[in-house]
Amino acid sequence: MNFEYSDQVKQLLQQLEGFMADFVYPAEQRYRDEVQQAANPWANPPVIEELKVKARELGLWNLFIPESHREFGGLGLSNAEYAPLAEVMGRVLWSSEVFNCSAPDTGNMEVLMMYGTPAQREQWLTPLLAGEIRSAFAMTEPAVASSDATNIECLIERRGDDYVINGRKWYITGAMRESCRVLILMGKNDPDNPSRHQQQSMILVPADTPGVKLVRACTALGFDDAPIGHAEVLFEDVTVPAENMLLGPGRGFEIAQGRLGPGRIHHCMRLIGCAQRALELACQRSVSRSTFGKQLAQHQSIREVIAQSYAEIEQARLLTLKTADLMDRAGNKVAKNLIAAAKIVVPAMAQRVLDRAMQIHGAGGLSEDYFMAEAFTYARTCRLADGPDEVHMMALGKQVIGELGGA
Amino acid sequence: MNFEYSDQVKQLLQQLEGFMADFVYPAEQRYRDEVQQAANPWANPPVIEELKVKARELGLWNLFIPESHREFGGLGLSNAEYAPLAEVMGRVLWSSEVFNCSAPDTGNMEVLMMYGTPAQREQWLTPLLAGEIRSAFAMTEPAVASSDATNIECLIERRGDDYVINGRKWYITGAMRESCRVLILMGKNDPDNPSRHQQQSMILVPADTPGVKLVRACTALGFDDAPIGHAEVLFEDVTVPAENMLLGPGRGFEIAQGRLGPGRIHHCMRLIGCAQRALELACQRSVSRSTFGKQLAQHQSIREVIAQSYAEIEQARLLTLKTADLMDRAGNKVAKNLIAAAKIVVPAMAQRVLDRAMQIHGAGGLSEDYFMAEAFTYARTCRLADGPDEVHMMALGKQVIGELGGA
Amino acid sequence: MNFEYSDQVKQLLQQLEGFMADFVYPAEQRYRDEVQQAANPWANPPVIEELKVKARELGLWNLFIPESHREFGGLGLSNAEYAPLAEVMGRVLWSSEVFNCSAPDTGNMEVLMMYGTPAQREQWLTPLLAGEIRSAFAMTEPAVASSDATNIECLIERRGDDYVINGRKWYITGAMRESCRVLILMGKNDPDNPSRHQQQSMILVPADTPGVKLVRACTALGFDDAPIGHAEVLFEDVTVPAENMLLGPGRGFEIAQGRLGPGRIHHCMRLIGCAQRALELACQRSVSRSTFGKQLAQHQSIREVIAQSYAEIEQARLLTLKTADLMDRAGNKVAKNLIAAAKIVVPAMAQRVLDRAMQIHGAGGLSEDYFMAEAFTYARTCRLADGPDEVHMMALGKQVIGELGGA
Amino acid sequence: MNFEYSDQVKQLLQQLEGFMADFVYPAEQRYRDEVQQAANPWANPPVIEELKVKARELGLWNLFIPESHREFGGLGLSNAEYAPLAEVMGRVLWSSEVFNCSAPDTGNMEVLMMYGTPAQREQWLTPLLAGEIRSAFAMTEPAVASSDATNIECLIERRGDDYVINGRKWYITGAMRESCRVLILMGKNDPDNPSRHQQQSMILVPADTPGVKLVRACTALGFDDAPIGHAEVLFEDVTVPAENMLLGPGRGFEIAQGRLGPGRIHHCMRLIGCAQRALELACQRSVSRSTFGKQLAQHQSIREVIAQSYAEIEQARLLTLKTADLMDRAGNKVAKNLIAAAKIVVPAMAQRVLDRAMQIHGAGGLSEDYFMAEAFTYARTCRLADGPDEVHMMALGKQVIGELGGA
Repeated sequence: MNFEYSDQVKQLLQQLEGFMADFVYPAEQRYRDEVQQAANPWANPPVIEELKVKARELGLWNLFIPESHREFGGLGLSNAEYAPLAEVMGRVLWSSEVFNCSAPDTGNMEVLMMYGTPAQREQWLTPLLAGEIRSAFAMTEPAVASSDATNIECLIERRGDDYVINGRKWYITGAMRESCRVLILMGKNDPDNPSRHQQQSMILVPADTPGVKLVRACTALGFDDAPIGHAEVLFEDVTVPAENMLLGPGRGFEIAQGRLGPGRIHHCMRLIGCAQRALELACQRSVSRSTFGKQLAQHQSIREVIAQSYAEIEQARLLTLKTADLMDRAGNKVAKNLIAAAKIVVPAMAQRVLDRAMQIHGAGGLSEDYFMAEAFTYARTCRLADGPDEVHMMALGKQVIGELGGA
Repeated sequence: MNFEYSDQVKQLLQQLEGFMADFVYPAEQRYRDEVQQAANPWANPPVIEELKVKARELGLWNLFIPESHREFGGLGLSNAEYAPLAEVMGRVLWSSEVFNCSAPDTGNMEVLMMYGTPAQREQWLTPLLAGEIRSAFAMTEPAVASSDATNIECLIERRGDDYVINGRKWYITGAMRESCRVLILMGKNDPDNPSRHQQQSMILVPADTPGVKLVRACTALGFDDAPIGHAEVLFEDVTVPAENMLLGPGRGFEIAQGRLGPGRIHHCMRLIGCAQRALELACQRSVSRSTFGKQLAQHQSIREVIAQSYAEIEQARLLTLKTADLMDRAGNKVAKNLIAAAKIVVPAMAQRVLDRAMQIHGAGGLSEDYFMAEAFTYARTCRLADGPDEVHMMALGKQVIGELGGA
Repeated sequence: MNFEYSDQVKQLLQQLEGFMADFVYPAEQRYRDEVQQAANPWANPPVIEELKVKARELGLWNLFIPESHREFGGLGLSNAEYAPLAEVMGRVLWSSEVFNCSAPDTGNMEVLMMYGTPAQREQWLTPLLAGEIRSAFAMTEPAVASSDATNIECLIERRGDDYVINGRKWYITGAMRESCRVLILMGKNDPDNPSRHQQQSMILVPADTPGVKLVRACTALGFDDAPIGHAEVLFEDVTVPAENMLLGPGRGFEIAQGRLGPGRIHHCMRLIGCAQRALELACQRSVSRSTFGKQLAQHQSIREVIAQSYAEIEQARLLTLKTADLMDRAGNKVAKNLIAAAKIVVPAMAQRVLDRAMQIHGAGGLSEDYFMAEAFTYARTCRLADGPDEVHMMALGKQVIGELGGA
Repeated sequence: MNFEYSDQVKQLLQQLEGFMADFVYPAEQRYRDEVQQAANPWANPPVIEELKVKARELGLWNLFIPESHREFGGLGLSNAEYAPLAEVMGRVLWSSEVFNCSAPDTGNMEVLMMYGTPAQREQWLTPLLAGEIRSAFAMTEPAVASSDATNIECLIERRGDDYVINGRKWYITGAMRESCRVLILMGKNDPDNPSRHQQQSMILVPADTPGVKLVRACTALGFDDAPIGHAEVLFEDVTVPAENMLLGPGRGFEIAQGRLGPGRIHHCMRLIGCAQRALELACQRSVSRSTFGKQLAQHQSIREVIAQSYAEIEQARLLTLKTADLMDRAGNKVAKNLIAAAKIVVPAMAQRVLDRAMQIHGAGGLSEDYFMAEAFTYARTCRLADGPDEVHMMALGKQVIGELGGA
């Protein structure tokens, strides 16, 4: 047992933290301004594109690519090695993209690495890895409880050499983007299959296919999250060639399970960065403001809140690291209990820590002058994203009872 | 002891609920659309003005005016009688204004009723009571922890027959409005007074006075809350006649204490309405969606969450009613323990109940298709508005220890 | 609406508080000593018997008897009027018996008032009302999840003019007592009845009937709660005359529903007294001890804890009072939602408040020198007694969804 | 980074778990019986002495001795290596003593290893290491808030070649034991020293010294914890030779800091074992009982509770392991933040997990038939033992603000 990061990770951390300090933190206000003043809210602000060039030059690029897919780039980091780096990126909500490590593209790239044909990879993976285009993942539907994916109603029907897609999706993160070129869509090609887990497929849908209609930009707790956005998308007789199918018809669940594990744990890593930064802001605020004759830092209740937050962050970080490590050593399937545990623990922890930090900042905590309001919303959203926590508790509880109940 | 509403209240409730059902709920989408498409985001959407006319005709107008100020209008309701009506209004965040019962105007009107000179009332109270103009209350400052009001730095200096005001305020709710004509400003006229609670005054500042600069519309957790808004306002050599002073120099704290009690409890009443509506939505959702082979309503964990929410709402409602009742019978000062208790209990309760209801709604819970996202933000904001809960716990705890500690 | 106690209640409260101050608080150490040194731990300590005489003389006797059964004694108090009195009794865990208002006898007496035949009343109710004998209520079984009473396995078989009882019960509060003369037992007389709620009956079992075996005194979190105790009781071919049946065969559920509502709400009343006393002790401690250079009372975190406790107690008290009031006005059946809400709220609240008060007392909080350790255990136990909270949340949640879900 | 136990630890774990399965779990009832029927409740039950012989033969003895003190025995395990073993011992509250790894003796032995003179070691350490005698640690006083150790009032006065001790201590764990031969006492030898942290000393007091009076056995939440017990001890003119002083006069704080860190983390290790066993019991119960037509395990709320408990235990375990690891690598002083974090996290976590497991067991959860009731009390007690959590949050919060506040 050993809780220290390796020398390679320590050195990368130092490099990444340097990059954040030199280029990212100083650009936060510029980013806000560019987004707010953009003619097209769904176009990337110039600052992102500039920083991408810089990060790529320095080799801080595609760090998420796991060892097993080293041939596609990156540094061959394990999940456990990537974790502290992703945590640092999480300190600025938009910074992961600077390093081409942002959701949902990382998950989509992993799907293409694992299941894409050479032609699919050539067309979509190569420009994604280069950060030239963006992608989306279309699963959630407004009409059904999509957390139980067997409820999904979107149809993918075979017609000759094509598939024809009809359905309505929403909260499709990234689909509003000007640069979004492709969606990975989950739907049912075989809704009558007696096996409820073999009715679904995943298929590649170019964003400019006729019939793909961006209905609106949904908001999440009031944020439109431009330039990334969450789209409601209507698919009306959207026709794509049969070779756009991923892995094979009826294998959508199989892909989902491979895709979603790392995606969830990446969210956890970033959320730990959010929480850590909020803790630091809270500490700084508590020494810079006074009430009722003393520094906030001298109030016992402030100290308790700081202590609780410190302890909760540290625990969540360790859980995330152990999960990543088990994914590395034993695979996502074996690690599923820990992935579920991290999914239910980390967003809720981050929300609590951010809530406390906001409270210490007074009105400022709610304002756009700090990253906290947006990060709080991100954490709250993650308690629903990739399925509400309750679904993961159901699965985890059932699994643990199965293992320990001795039945 | 008697927990039933009086017949008058029951009848008013019925009338108000009828109005909500007939006119307000059906207008929610129109309101959203009008706000979103407004040329001037800070102008009232037409729907509000139309509904105001209707409500006034029906006598559902100025219901907040307490018995003691019956001469100014309203129905002479006690706080306890007004409470269930304000709860109903709280079910639609913007609906209080339809009945001329919205913050911060109600509090400002009460200040003018209690402390205004005939001339001040004539100029400002009359059009406020008629719903013709709006007002703001300028207290919080970005540079200091304003929850300890002795920290306030804004200066109100006497020069001849005038006062000259210099300072910066933010989160001044309503000051962005097109119809905002006057601000009640708290500042220091006597910063060197050895009594820390006699340094402050409140003064009337017409919104169009030279030197009053709207710096920006602050957001609260991402919401700009148009058309009401939260302004950052810079006061640069703002000169107003000496007769704009309220009550007298050095009496700002005295006014604040009279003003803020009812304001806080009004927030509580409305938040209970938010929570109650969220509970109803959660119940409706739980019978209309299914996961894993059964209705959400049949999952034991959903039932527990509904049960907890029901119990928490009922308790918070009773606490608020008892507080209102004590304010009626013994005055705001005697009721200060209960007011503080309601302030720390109700917003946090509403946030929890809304959070759970959102969780039951999946992505929809975060969306603008329901009132929950915005109400959640309102509840979260109220944990800071009128001072962070911690300040009220400090005061309440100290008071309770004084009474029970037997020292 | 009116939150004030009536004059009669105020006057009774004053009388009862006087009795507590004069006789009960000063006897707490004597009670502890007598229990600890008793030759028979299940015999009432003399102090109780002495105080019973005093209380009865002063008319503070059988106060629990509801208006509707005024003919049996008491003062004809409503549930809502009894509530604040029971709260005061709750401040000393053993004091309810002094006023003949202690569980489980009050519930058993109510059963006899409501459903007893004249002969049954003569034999058992009369001496119970006089405080001459004690009783027990035998429902919970070790072998099944008794919170779902349809699981109960104890058999009540008709044989000629008798019923023969076989089964094992545990946590039968009061059955260890020397003075316990009768048990009301719930069992199945008709286990094959297709209606799962008509299989059960309640029957009177004299404690000295052959075959009634006290197996052991169970402990609750380490407390044996002598002299009252929680017995494991084995019933082996226990034969009682058929006329001992209550109400009629198959009507056990019906009686249970009538009996358990008031029982639960009485627990709530007493627990509020526990919590209130703990709050007072916490306040007193916080002004009498200092750490790190200041009084505990000056630590902001202590103030927050006191404020939270004050607010939670007040809310729970109001919920309990409203529940009692609805029981009075509309009956236990209509009040079932509120009864369930109180059942899940109050014991948990009391446990939290006691936990905090203990924490403020350091090691003393765990000791037998204060009432807190025992009251904490009482509160914890009440989260399971009369069914675990989860069962009540299930019922309440289902009910609320039915009412608000609009299905 | 590496989350796997070493091969040595895995093998020891296997051996220890085997010992528990073969000898300890089967002896739990015998232990209860022997304690309950003991003529002298403070004498070790024979089962402990038998098992000690067995464990020592197998080399499962003094496992707590850290590498740095390898010369005194044990296996030279690091804290991180010892942690999973202590966790297993924690599954049966009395089992640590079987392996001579029980508090407070381990801490006292460490003090003697670190600071004892050869003569002191010869007299006390040797028989302690052999498990022939037991010891106690006398710090807490009933009259002052001892969590701030500068409040301590017990006096240690020099008189010629002796020290004379006067004071009253309570909750002195182990002092009731028949085999307790020595106390390490903390008191003030120099109460007027201007440095508040140099007034205290620690001194060895043979238990049979005249003037050492066992006043009573205090209970903790109703448990007397026989045969170990928590004594109230009066020291009246207790005279011991000057060479009994540990390290030197005025160095009590210094020793306390060295002693208490490992002690706290050992409690954490054992509490994780308590929580883990409770989780297992809860899982087993949930598959063996049914309510309302289905297995407990099939209720979604049970699954959520199990999932939450699993996640909380895993996090607390990782925090404890990381803390132990940092103590190993950097020393107790550097690890103080993590030690404090573990102290505030683990007992509260264990209490919650046990509380839930008890709730799933119904009345059985409160009974002596399971280890839960006693373990719940142990966890609750640990939130106060070695100082209430609030004191540790104060220290940790202050420290974190100092590090991150950038002041």
